[in-house]
Amino acid sequence: MRRKSLEESVCAVARSLDIIGDWWTLLIVREALSGAKRFGEFQKNLGMAKNILSTRLRSMVENGIMEMVMPEDSQAYYEYVLTEQGKALTPVLVALAQWGGDHLFDPKERSSLLLDAKKRRPLRPLELRSHDGKLLSVDEVFVPPTPSVAA
Amino acid sequence: MRRKSLEESVCAVARSLDIIGDWWTLLIVREALSGAKRFGEFQKNLGMAKNILSTRLRSMVENGIMEMVMPEDSQAYYEYVLTEQGKALTPVLVALAQWGGDHLFDPKERSSLLLDAKKRRPLRPLELRSHDGKLLSVDEVFVPPTPSVAA
Repeated sequence: MRRKSLEESVCAVARSLDIIGDWWTLLIVREALSGAKRFGEFQKNLGMAKNILSTRLRSMVENGIMEMVMPEDSQAYYEYVLTEQGKALTPVLVALAQWGGDHLFDPKERSSLLLDAKKRRPLRPLELRSHDGKLLSVDEVFVPPTPSVAA
Repeated sequence: MRRKSLEESVCAVARSLDIIGDWWTLLIVREALSGAKRFGEFQKNLGMAKNILSTRLRSMVENGIMEMVMPEDSQAYYEYVLTEQGKALTPVLVALAQWGGDHLFDPKERSSLLLDAKKRRPLRPLELRSHDGKLLSVDEVFVPPTPSVAA
């Protein structure tokens, strides 16, 4: 990847993308949230090359998104399990899924979204709210220029 | 990029990542939301190589995320302006910024987040809610396996 590292950026978007900017990462998180645990499951479900998956999983473990766990009933296979930090990426997946569902599917097409586990219905669209709870449109959100920081 | 196209996936996350999976795209959207319009502004603010920026902007125009506008007071420079579809990526940026702010910054570090335009305070954390408005934890979100679709 040809890019300067964003690791030290004060911009929280940039720093997040430095860790999860590889689109595979979010697809792996998605698979993990839907139950995949073993290397072979991720590989099969995502159709990934073994070497790319291997590199990516290692980097996710290094970055605290996943951890490797040896299940008690198995001496053979490690399982890859999301950490709390990894699970905390769920709103990113929800935001992506809702944007895609709104803009990248024909009205007749059905899209796979994230669901309420109990009722199995799509989640309510994410809402942008001010610190004191006021609903904000996208035009009411201010994005500071990259070098500056929020007070 | 070595990957199979996700363009036709029924998974809305995958299809979104097919369009915006390149981490530059989201940083360009962020710059546009903070006021950048001209090629040179994007290039300078993001430190991008001209050829990469050029390719990326063209693809964003093709995908309906940006449009090229010739300002009335200028005969020389096109401006790149976010479409409604492009602005609708704001929740993705907010989700990324909040995740990064929570997990990738030391407590003493200040992170640049997205703000309420009027009060200039960071937005409230995004909440996951069921269709009928119930607040959900990440463990209460169900992610269907990739091939299946939401009813």
